[in-house]
Amino acid sequence: MAEDKHPYKLSFVVRDYECDLQGVVNNANYQHYLEHARHEFLISKGVSFAQLHDEGIDLIVTKAEIEYKHPLRRRDEFIVTVNIQREGNVRILFVQDIFRLPDLKLIVKARVTGVAIKKGRPVAPGDLVFRLGLES
Amino acid sequence: MAEDKHPYKLSFVVRDYECDLQGVVNNANYQHYLEHARHEFLISKGVSFAQLHDEGIDLIVTKAEIEYKHPLRRRDEFIVTVNIQREGNVRILFVQDIFRLPDLKLIVKARVTGVAIKKGRPVAPGDLVFRLGLES
Amino acid sequence: MAEDKHPYKLSFVVRDYECDLQGVVNNANYQHYLEHARHEFLISKGVSFAQLHDEGIDLIVTKAEIEYKHPLRRRDEFIVTVNIQREGNVRILFVQDIFRLPDLKLIVKARVTGVAIKKGRPVAPGDLVFRLGLES
Amino acid sequence: MAEDKHPYKLSFVVRDYECDLQGVVNNANYQHYLEHARHEFLISKGVSFAQLHDEGIDLIVTKAEIEYKHPLRRRDEFIVTVNIQREGNVRILFVQDIFRLPDLKLIVKARVTGVAIKKGRPVAPGDLVFRLGLES
Repeated sequence: MAEDKHPYKLSFVVRDYECDLQGVVNNANYQHYLEHARHEFLISKGVSFAQLHDEGIDLIVTKAEIEYKHPLRRRDEFIVTVNIQREGNVRILFVQDIFRLPDLKLIVKARVTGVAIKKGRPVAPGDLVFRLGLES
Repeated sequence: MAEDKHPYKLSFVVRDYECDLQGVVNNANYQHYLEHARHEFLISKGVSFAQLHDEGIDLIVTKAEIEYKHPLRRRDEFIVTVNIQREGNVRILFVQDIFRLPDLKLIVKARVTGVAIKKGRPVAPGDLVFRLGLES
Repeated sequence: MAEDKHPYKLSFVVRDYECDLQGVVNNANYQHYLEHARHEFLISKGVSFAQLHDEGIDLIVTKAEIEYKHPLRRRDEFIVTVNIQREGNVRILFVQDIFRLPDLKLIVKARVTGVAIKKGRPVAPGDLVFRLGLES
Repeated sequence: MAEDKHPYKLSFVVRDYECDLQGVVNNANYQHYLEHARHEFLISKGVSFAQLHDEGIDLIVTKAEIEYKHPLRRRDEFIVTVNIQREGNVRILFVQDIFRLPDLKLIVKARVTGVAIKKGRPVAPGDLVFRLGLES
């Protein structure tokens, strides 16, 4: 499936406490930004973490590949994009980029694999696939 | 009640990611250190967060007063102490200090007030008071 | 000096990673929110951390008193306010509240004392006082 | 180059504040654990971040591939291992695993690529290669 040409975007600004001794955003914080954008994206698609949890389903990340292209610095504004692809029966791949504003410099490229877990086992994302527009 | 002359102590080392742009540990991280020491202290006294939770009881912090005397820097070693006092019927006061090693320089002085909550209301800490040696 | 009736306000939304095992925002994260609001406030007043740093001046927090009135939960929206008062010659007191939106429920009350440091010693905030409208 | 059979190991215990709403360690915190172990490893090899910084050299991460095999929970003890390989002229690959104690269950597998940067450009790690025993 082709990636959406107009992926989901969420805006952020770097907060001072997210920067470390080197004067740049600490690497782990990019995962926070990516996670927050994924969750807001899923919610925008009508996915309810609370409802899933009541059905015994947890969405978890099984793999993250993150390329750090350029650092963000204090007070930088940036956007995090979210694109999704289905991978096999049970996995969903989130293709995410971080771009600095306003020059759209590429900061981070990430590929994050998620899976829906029920009683400790991966389950077909089912309704998720429908909600996310991934049915074939 | 007099403070214990030999309070509980827990050792830490500063991790680089805990430092911020100013080259020192970010203020919020001292609360992490204080919290971790309190939890380890309570567990050392036989208090089980899991068991309390099963009984519908949550321990929460209602107030924190923190004086920052001197900053910690990358790789500094330090100890966090925990002393407790009962405050009235429902509150427990944790008197905590952070000292740098090996010179025992005072880094942080903190007074953290905790309360046991059941169904949204403070309850007498009961068994906690006994476990923590606070009965009068 | 009377507190400003129309203090500085900054809006936030709780991010999932800021919540802990108890399902609420971890206490240390409120300090992050308070700090970010203070920094944005100072910048809005024309205070430049970079310029101060070049002049050898660091703004540091010497004391924080935080009352936790009610917890924030995942995806709650809230505002952090900033009011300032001069305390003696060298200290500035930040009076800050956190209110949940849209019901304006009081979440946190905080009093944070800051001081300007040059070569390890407190200095009169000087130009800061002027910039912040604190001159008497 | 074969991986060292006896890599560097560092022990940790999960702190409650590192766990999130799902009751497990938040994904971003594994990067903190991995980073702290890498830094301690480099220091154990005689690499001084301060000295490198004085020489205008910063060590940065350009890529992280992290597989999440099993979650860590509150108070779990675990070790983080560090193995290194040279990749071409300027890159160093850190192969890192996280194992839970005492059962040595595999928690995370990570491959983290680092590079030494001087004036914004990658430089041959030079003395680093010697210190880390990577010369061919």
